[in-house]
Amino acid sequence: MESDQKNQKTSELFTTIDSIFNSNSVAVVGASDETFSFGFHFMRYLVDSGYKGNIFPVNPKKKEILNYQAYAELTLVPGNIDYVICCIRADLVTTLIDQCLKKKVKVIHLLTGRFSETGDPEAHELEKQILAKAQKAGIRLIGPNCMGIYAPKSGISFNHDLSMESGKVGGICQSGGVAGEIVRYASLRGVKFSKVISYGNALDLNESDLLEYFYLDQETKVIFIYIEGAKDGLRFFKILKKTSMKKPVILLKGGKSSAGQKATISHTASIAGKEGAWDAACRQSNTIRASCIDELIDLLVAFDKLPAILSKKTGIIGGGGGKGILAADECENAGLNVIDLPDDVEKFIVKKDPSMSGWLGNPVDFSIVSGSKIDTIEMLNILSLSPGIDILLAILTEDNPFDEIFWTEFINKEVENYIKIASNKSKPFAVVMGNPRLNISDVENWRWKAFLKAWKKLQESNIPVFTSTKTGANAISKVAEFYMRMEKRASIPQVPETKQEKIGTILSEIEAKQAISNAGIAVNKTFFAKTKKEAIDLSEKIGFPVVFKIVAPTITHKTDVGGVCLNIKTSKDAGDAYDKVTAAAGENEIFGMAVQKMIPQGIELVAGMSRDPQFGPMLMFGIGGVHVEIIKDVIFAIAPLDKEGAMEMISGIKNKQILNGFRGQEPVNKEEIADLLVKLSDYVMLNHEIEEIDINPIIATPAGLVAVDARIIKH
Amino acid sequence: MESDQKNQKTSELFTTIDSIFNSNSVAVVGASDETFSFGFHFMRYLVDSGYKGNIFPVNPKKKEILNYQAYAELTLVPGNIDYVICCIRADLVTTLIDQCLKKKVKVIHLLTGRFSETGDPEAHELEKQILAKAQKAGIRLIGPNCMGIYAPKSGISFNHDLSMESGKVGGICQSGGVAGEIVRYASLRGVKFSKVISYGNALDLNESDLLEYFYLDQETKVIFIYIEGAKDGLRFFKILKKTSMKKPVILLKGGKSSAGQKATISHTASIAGKEGAWDAACRQSNTIRASCIDELIDLLVAFDKLPAILSKKTGIIGGGGGKGILAADECENAGLNVIDLPDDVEKFIVKKDPSMSGWLGNPVDFSIVSGSKIDTIEMLNILSLSPGIDILLAILTEDNPFDEIFWTEFINKEVENYIKIASNKSKPFAVVMGNPRLNISDVENWRWKAFLKAWKKLQESNIPVFTSTKTGANAISKVAEFYMRMEKRASIPQVPETKQEKIGTILSEIEAKQAISNAGIAVNKTFFAKTKKEAIDLSEKIGFPVVFKIVAPTITHKTDVGGVCLNIKTSKDAGDAYDKVTAAAGENEIFGMAVQKMIPQGIELVAGMSRDPQFGPMLMFGIGGVHVEIIKDVIFAIAPLDKEGAMEMISGIKNKQILNGFRGQEPVNKEEIADLLVKLSDYVMLNHEIEEIDINPIIATPAGLVAVDARIIKH
Repeated sequence: MESDQKNQKTSELFTTIDSIFNSNSVAVVGASDETFSFGFHFMRYLVDSGYKGNIFPVNPKKKEILNYQAYAELTLVPGNIDYVICCIRADLVTTLIDQCLKKKVKVIHLLTGRFSETGDPEAHELEKQILAKAQKAGIRLIGPNCMGIYAPKSGISFNHDLSMESGKVGGICQSGGVAGEIVRYASLRGVKFSKVISYGNALDLNESDLLEYFYLDQETKVIFIYIEGAKDGLRFFKILKKTSMKKPVILLKGGKSSAGQKATISHTASIAGKEGAWDAACRQSNTIRASCIDELIDLLVAFDKLPAILSKKTGIIGGGGGKGILAADECENAGLNVIDLPDDVEKFIVKKDPSMSGWLGNPVDFSIVSGSKIDTIEMLNILSLSPGIDILLAILTEDNPFDEIFWTEFINKEVENYIKIASNKSKPFAVVMGNPRLNISDVENWRWKAFLKAWKKLQESNIPVFTSTKTGANAISKVAEFYMRMEKRASIPQVPETKQEKIGTILSEIEAKQAISNAGIAVNKTFFAKTKKEAIDLSEKIGFPVVFKIVAPTITHKTDVGGVCLNIKTSKDAGDAYDKVTAAAGENEIFGMAVQKMIPQGIELVAGMSRDPQFGPMLMFGIGGVHVEIIKDVIFAIAPLDKEGAMEMISGIKNKQILNGFRGQEPVNKEEIADLLVKLSDYVMLNHEIEEIDINPIIATPAGLVAVDARIIKH
Repeated sequence: MESDQKNQKTSELFTTIDSIFNSNSVAVVGASDETFSFGFHFMRYLVDSGYKGNIFPVNPKKKEILNYQAYAELTLVPGNIDYVICCIRADLVTTLIDQCLKKKVKVIHLLTGRFSETGDPEAHELEKQILAKAQKAGIRLIGPNCMGIYAPKSGISFNHDLSMESGKVGGICQSGGVAGEIVRYASLRGVKFSKVISYGNALDLNESDLLEYFYLDQETKVIFIYIEGAKDGLRFFKILKKTSMKKPVILLKGGKSSAGQKATISHTASIAGKEGAWDAACRQSNTIRASCIDELIDLLVAFDKLPAILSKKTGIIGGGGGKGILAADECENAGLNVIDLPDDVEKFIVKKDPSMSGWLGNPVDFSIVSGSKIDTIEMLNILSLSPGIDILLAILTEDNPFDEIFWTEFINKEVENYIKIASNKSKPFAVVMGNPRLNISDVENWRWKAFLKAWKKLQESNIPVFTSTKTGANAISKVAEFYMRMEKRASIPQVPETKQEKIGTILSEIEAKQAISNAGIAVNKTFFAKTKKEAIDLSEKIGFPVVFKIVAPTITHKTDVGGVCLNIKTSKDAGDAYDKVTAAAGENEIFGMAVQKMIPQGIELVAGMSRDPQFGPMLMFGIGGVHVEIIKDVIFAIAPLDKEGAMEMISGIKNKQILNGFRGQEPVNKEEIADLLVKLSDYVMLNHEIEEIDINPIIATPAGLVAVDARIIKH
């Protein structure tokens, strides 16, 4: 029932957004012939992009704009209006919405700015009124403060001279400037787009709605996102997860977390910091995270033009001497596997020119090949067909020291060869070709002319070309990682809708351990003694050696103040320890002493939970102990977690070799850790009042995992 | 006396290398008019580059080459020959050296390849013969297997069409291809070179000789190095150190360490791995390390065109909305400090347009400024003059959504403004301007034409221009770090010449601690007990609590096998502990038990030494304890070390906050650590038989540092 409603909503949303791309009429409100105004440019974008429906400029002072009849007011436009581009002042927008209601407009793009982005409370209030009015009218809004839509097939654009060839890359972009730059620069690299939506302040349609659209859109096979902050982190995360099961999603996050940094008490919250949840959301959903616009464009080139890659054995072509060495270094750094030449290639070399065997390796230095008895194109073919190589990366040998005739011939031949290999479609193939910084005179030089021509040929052949081995290897490696993980991924549990209540206390260790024990996690049971005598009696009862820990509500990091005494072996020692530990508490109010059995040495782990303002409960796992915040070898995951997700977390920590039995210690049972994390996940999903949890250390011994200390903060 | 000899040698070396650049005659042996041969191209390079002296082609079969009279043999050339470029086959080189001796040639550039780089033992042998012959004849060699010299002022070149404008950047490049690419691509960015030397196999003149030359060369103010392996690591390191006190040195390391990875016993050697010594050599000498050719070129642009920068307060201009956010992120990531707008700028904004105050921040969004009452150029001036800003970075607003006329006007105006600001020379100023991937048709487009023109204007104004905020911020930040460190650096102790002897044993803990105690490092003295009774007696004598550690020559990591028992409090416990620990040793031969006082809890540190095949003894310092190899928060430094160098190591570890008294612990006395490291350094400099040292843990308590365990490996 609920699911049906959801599907209906989704389908409505899809139809509404899709109506823009299939629209038969568009009105530009605030259209103008002032060539410095957006009202002029948005008219020009439509006209120049060949929008096929009716274009209605609306302007009370003009009869005609760009040869289109102008209307004084939206309501005076004859017939239907499917889509409105609003270029008028902020204070005029509410009236426009009334008019749109009359004309049954479905979507308005609010180019109009100077709303909440100014930080002005009045502007913020106005924005809220507009949203309320639009919602009542059933009109969806894109923006405000954004450039709107670029959809080449529909003839809609948000900038001049963008490519009108349609492709398979879709984009969601909070910033119009970033959107424009990505489209323009990626187009020059041969990437073609289905549609890109710049959505600004996300007053109504937000990143989740738009991603849902691209999830369903058949035309879009690769998605990019530029985002500064999510309106509803959990919903966005859910859609990211399902989308990246179908298509690669590349995400660039701009700005520090908009939610800001609150004061934290637990290690977990403190380590998570501002970007922990975004890292977790991307890793868990198999979203590819780009670190800057340039990397995002490289990833678009790679995902747009390369097939699925499921192994990383890489062969490198060309680039003599130092360039080959650097290329190999950079491929290895990026995580590609620069293998020794496979046997079939080796055999071919021996057969053709035995003197080259041993000298010629991977990278295959073609400056050596060309001086040998081996035919270049034959060698290229062998490499492209060898089953021992999964990825082929060719470095264009532009640094050959020849003059115009030879250089040009050489480069042309090389490009021709590459196009031939690519046309085999035998395996993923990419080319590295520098992008020299040319000025208006340089482009007249014979070398750069030949170079720009060569690039055009490669571009027209739809070969992915990168400007350096570093950037190319990085992008290719990320393509491989995406598809390898996609293949591995199973379904991920649905996130129940949660609401957080605020209460507010720090539980005592005894309460905290009771709580996680109720959650099904094995704890080293703690008993509470109010007096020295009770502490000694309890110790005798549970059996030495024991551990004392102070119970004092104002002390959260007990070890740091000397509030812990380990390995107490006799009743006399217990008495001494009691005195020492209480003395160490100083001015703090003391409730008594937590008494527990001493656990044998083992590997110290940590698990925990903190709440992210955008993504909700987020689990932590890693190397524990008193130095957890220093070592910081932990990983985060947005809850809920199933066993597979937990196993993925476990294998994601940097020093995972410690879990495999480092230097003679017993290996840790990873299944048990995964169980513990899933239990923790279930627990935090059900207990909304819990704000932060640290379970540290969890001691892993051959006998199993024991939570030795825990801290819980409620709100 | 020795120093005099050294100076004389240095000055001879300088004169010899410099003679190439001042040469009056050059012979190209193996000159040719076959346009595919190097003998042809090296003739062309000289002719086209305008070499001012005599050019003598040598070829037994030709009368004339490129209109120059050819000679059948070098000895037939009339008059002096200062410099020989050798393009003949490897097996003909020895005869040529005889002829060069007759003609009193000082330097030969051996373009000739197919020597040791092929891995062929015969070729290797031939190389050695050539060296011996040249040394006897007093002739210096560049190469073999290299492209030789590019020196625009002297009219010498190693490729076609390289810029013939002379500048202040010098380069040493093991690979000719890399050298060519760096010169060509950096020239397009406006970098000008003094001389660049490609030196290949470094048979005679090596990286140290050439760096020594550039250290002395007045024309060269910035140096780059591409290196695959050092012939003499310590000499190279010494010259690096003195050179970078005078001029920035940028180093790109290609390939895995040529010395390979030997088996290691200590943590120190294992963590150092293959690249540890290169990292240490660069950090200690204040050499700027580039990770790839592109970064190296960005660094050349920055160091060539920016003044010394001594603080990182950065103001960012332009780039609306998302681009500004990303620019700020990238500057912060690179280590620049994106400050709030200084008071004087804030006051100016309030005065000009109060409505902009609070909205306008840093980055200064010029798309907002242009819609306000603030004059653009006035605002730029205020920013460039504000004493609160040390670095100004302008992002060219190329994504403005205008058409040809406005867009072009806008960009031109922006470029004009930037040139005006730069001409103030009020502070370091750089521009970010994308480098679109244009093909031969794109460069005809109005937008890109205007763009290429704009770039030319900026280039001609000698403004450093970067293709992205990320790469620009990174380069600027490294310039600042270089000069800030240069200002701080004091003289660094001279490295005595050392020779390593090979012996070979692992010292027992007692011997190892005795050794470091002799070195002046405080140890927790260890006593040796052969029997259980002796162990109990000793414990009673030194006073409980004590620690037992097994002494067994085959067990190096005692904790891992259960060979350690801590906190033994009574004589009875001592007996039990003895049994338990010896039982844990299993099959291993046991010598007895090390008995020592139990040291109170404190911060666990590690210090150590391993020997690098290229750089000699290398010290380690970091966070200690049993997990030292997992945490890997350690830093290396090439010995010897003075106190300042030691302090720099201490502040170089990632988790240095632990030393400042993390979570209530006492801060560690850094002076004491520095003393310990200097003592360790002195010790290893004097004891050449020691191969590896681990001192772990060193416990830091308020009472001081105590080395609790140590391991020494001799060879």
